[in-house]
Amino acid sequence: MTRWIELTTLGTGGAYPGENRFTASYVIRDWLGNVVLLDVGEGTQYRLRQADIPLTRISTILITHGHGDHINGLPGLLQSMYLNTRNIPLNIIASSDVIKFIKDTLEVEGAHLGFSINLYEINQEGKIEIFNQKGDKINVYWHPSCHSREAYCYTLEWNLRPRINVEEMKRQGIIPGPDVEKYIESNDDKMLIRLNPFRISYTGDTKPCDSIIKCIKDSDVIIHESTFSDDNEKEADQFFHSTGRRAALDAKNSRASLLILSHISSRYEGYEALEIEKQAKEEFKNTILTWDLARFRFII
Amino acid sequence: MTRWIELTTLGTGGAYPGENRFTASYVIRDWLGNVVLLDVGEGTQYRLRQADIPLTRISTILITHGHGDHINGLPGLLQSMYLNTRNIPLNIIASSDVIKFIKDTLEVEGAHLGFSINLYEINQEGKIEIFNQKGDKINVYWHPSCHSREAYCYTLEWNLRPRINVEEMKRQGIIPGPDVEKYIESNDDKMLIRLNPFRISYTGDTKPCDSIIKCIKDSDVIIHESTFSDDNEKEADQFFHSTGRRAALDAKNSRASLLILSHISSRYEGYEALEIEKQAKEEFKNTILTWDLARFRFII
Repeated sequence: MTRWIELTTLGTGGAYPGENRFTASYVIRDWLGNVVLLDVGEGTQYRLRQADIPLTRISTILITHGHGDHINGLPGLLQSMYLNTRNIPLNIIASSDVIKFIKDTLEVEGAHLGFSINLYEINQEGKIEIFNQKGDKINVYWHPSCHSREAYCYTLEWNLRPRINVEEMKRQGIIPGPDVEKYIESNDDKMLIRLNPFRISYTGDTKPCDSIIKCIKDSDVIIHESTFSDDNEKEADQFFHSTGRRAALDAKNSRASLLILSHISSRYEGYEALEIEKQAKEEFKNTILTWDLARFRFII
Repeated sequence: MTRWIELTTLGTGGAYPGENRFTASYVIRDWLGNVVLLDVGEGTQYRLRQADIPLTRISTILITHGHGDHINGLPGLLQSMYLNTRNIPLNIIASSDVIKFIKDTLEVEGAHLGFSINLYEINQEGKIEIFNQKGDKINVYWHPSCHSREAYCYTLEWNLRPRINVEEMKRQGIIPGPDVEKYIESNDDKMLIRLNPFRISYTGDTKPCDSIIKCIKDSDVIIHESTFSDDNEKEADQFFHSTGRRAALDAKNSRASLLILSHISSRYEGYEALEIEKQAKEEFKNTILTWDLARFRFII
């Protein structure tokens, strides 16, 4: 069975959204049927519709921090899940201020959701196992990011069961059949290919800092905010954001094979944003600047 | 000087938005430079951008009620106004529960807006003069609508200064010049054409009821919710909504020359929604079903 993980970028703009970039949101699906949403900027439910991803399938929402451009789509999303007759529980992982926001808005809007929400309050560093289907699970790790308010960087980790070493089987002349499993067990070292876990990190809003390096260091794919280009490095620092180049320098300190740049300020309209990608590529070659509704599929 | 009022529909969907219909929002501009926003569903700021209407120009926001699909765009809109360096005050007219929502979300999101918001709390019936530029003003009236929670129907009224009766001037052989004004004053009845105020009503969410009739009776243009078609009249009643036909019967009880149908349930995808218009037209001929980003310009 092919194992795949798919990332769809729903909102790739900064706090003040551009004409073609909604505010922050990303959705990750995997071969096991898990659907995880990272941040819920305004308009996330419209983008999910455009991406043809049913709201009811989302099992977990991770929120990096409580700035409006990362949470303002949450009340509408929850309401639409309810109107879509969702009846399975939803996990939301967030810091205490965001949990207050969720409770407040649900209260004011008088939503009787009809499904339960499991709220996991996070702080400092931590790990949670968010699902467990068919013997597999996703681990979620968080580290503080370095922003103008309490904020977190997330890493999703898939522990992959070993693959059978088909080449070794052939070499030893072993024919697939009922005895193979036992044979593999007793010859574990040669017959199985052990795989590294697959990891995707999402920085949320942050300026470069040690804690981000820690969050992303073992990741295969990094979604790194890069609000500004080199020209605005001072502004990036002042407002606790990153430039594309600084994101790329962070990626160099990881084992990542792909760096995805997002959270692009609306001052870079259309193709102007490619300047950020160009500057980042000077530091880390496998960098791509993303747009709303781009899809990345990883076969692992 | 041509006097015009322009309505742009920003979000014309129901509570569960469709692929092409965002949740409720409308913007009205006039020849005096006033920009009034009616409801702020999720994504309103994106639609305003698409409609090329600057956020900074909005002077007043009227909110019909506190359901999420009418207010969830408000926090992001306020944040973007701030990021757009707005520094002139903003008026928001709403019921107490919505005012609580605004205060709560601003508090949680930690927005330091940099501009002041004048919150006008409404209840029952009332009138407010929202602007006063160049000697003109807009009156805003509200009446309760009949929905599943506290909700209001708004009427905007432009009192139009009289027009000079050019025909009468010609007939009397009066030549335009410095003396005309005095002459007009002393011959007021013949020389001036007095105009009815121009009125636009917006029902918000409601089922048909006497209070709505009262709200819309003297209006030229009515934006009436019509969530459902005849087939779902029972459901409309149960959830305190209107069918197109019932909206048209309401319009018959007014002096309106145009009925605009909106707040269309997502169960009517694309052209299917035209059924609602067809049924309404059987009762009130000048009916139009609207879509997101439609523009209506009234020369008055």
